Amino acid sequence: MLQMDTMQHIEVIGIGAGNPDHLTLQAVEALRRSDVVVALDKGDTKADLLNARREIVDKHAPGTPIVAVTDPERDRNPADYKAEVERWHQERAQLLLDALPAEGTAAFLVWGDPSLYDSTLRIIERMRGLGLNATVTVTPGITAVQALTAAHGILINRIGEDIRITTGRALVDGPMTNAVVMLDGGAAWMHAPDAEIWWGAYLGTDKQVLRHGLVSEIGIDLAQEKAALREKHGWIMDIYLLRK
Amino acid sequence: MLQMDTMQHIEVIGIGAGNPDHLTLQAVEALRRSDVVVALDKGDTKADLLNARREIVDKHAPGTPIVAVTDPERDRNPADYKAEVERWHQERAQLLLDALPAEGTAAFLVWGDPSLYDSTLRIIERMRGLGLNATVTVTPGITAVQALTAAHGILINRIGEDIRITTGRALVDGPMTNAVVMLDGGAAWMHAPDAEIWWGAYLGTDKQVLRHGLVSEIGIDLAQEKAALREKHGWIMDIYLLRK
Repeated sequence: MLQMDTMQHIEVIGIGAGNPDHLTLQAVEALRRSDVVVALDKGDTKADLLNARREIVDKHAPGTPIVAVTDPERDRNPADYKAEVERWHQERAQLLLDALPAEGTAAFLVWGDPSLYDSTLRIIERMRGLGLNATVTVTPGITAVQALTAAHGILINRIGEDIRITTGRALVDGPMTNAVVMLDGGAAWMHAPDAEIWWGAYLGTDKQVLRHGLVSEIGIDLAQEKAALREKHGWIMDIYLLRK
Repeated sequence: MLQMDTMQHIEVIGIGAGNPDHLTLQAVEALRRSDVVVALDKGDTKADLLNARREIVDKHAPGTPIVAVTDPERDRNPADYKAEVERWHQERAQLLLDALPAEGTAAFLVWGDPSLYDSTLRIIERMRGLGLNATVTVTPGITAVQALTAAHGILINRIGEDIRITTGRALVDGPMTNAVVMLDGGAAWMHAPDAEIWWGAYLGTDKQVLRHGLVSEIGIDLAQEKAALREKHGWIMDIYLLRK
């Protein structure tokens, strides 16, 4: 339990996008100086991801205890998206605060990088509001964006062009180029029929699948393949680059 | 010299944004299986960067020879930006092709990540046009974007928002939010007077400088500080996030 008069330290560590060797030397050091690893357990569907974190801890900081916290329920199709995310983060923050050891350094291992579509830093701010008194260090990690482009051997942008990182949700509203799409639960690429797509799922793992082509030619087939892969593995994490 | 009938292998390795411990375990392995490191020597002004690469090689793959190629001259303010970049890349490609060993694996160590505002993959395509026959593996690296957000302990975006990665050049054309600006030779943040700025230079090195505030309040001072730092160290690499 948290003691209000004890100063704690939190290491927020980006661990990369699936391949355990995405870990940086800096991340290994941060993990080694941590007394405990706090992990959100997302249940059976993401057991692969939890196991991957356990393997990282066992390999680089053997003996470090992992405190698993079961993720609270979340409404995935709420009437008010922002409000539901808000409520969910608040509940998560309280659970994690209760699980935090009273002193020492606790590590949060974050998929990808802590700055990109991840909620850990926001949760820690909420934990402060709930009584946490801690210093925080952030260690950057390889994102799925970089795992995708490396796997395809491509650049994100052409010379002088902008890059946009967005969600499947935003893609529905209009066309964009050099758009890297994350968090697409469906097949939002179908909203960009005249784009070229570089797609990847389970990047950096032994399940990795890559596809590349014109949305007009492979889009429908890709939507079916994504559904089949999700069915097969029980979960999917995918990301793609669209370019006109 | 290149022999047209020999298959070579090239490792394009992202080495992170300044801190040698940004190197991933995957990058260390890629470096260790390389026979030679090919480095572009940008002259005295970037000696710090070349030395940092030498230190990485000496630490993780001692004994691996480094072939330094002097970077060709480039017009930084050309009438036709795209054409000058094109010409410059072609000249670079020929120099590197001439320097490549006839067989084995050559490593190109790339600052940041090979997919983001880096020309290595384009140069290799050009080298193919000039006779190179090689397989290529890309290893992702921590970008300056991630080094910036980790140093400030912030997220790039607020919930549900897009992210844009752009250049100082593009910023002149209009306002944008959650814009990460790279390759700004000047102080293009002055084009966004009503934005909040998170700025960093020499990220991950012992020269690192961070600033945060409203452009309207710190923008002019920051422009002066950037000029002074460039004068002091002979070069500067900076990056910043702007948010409305």
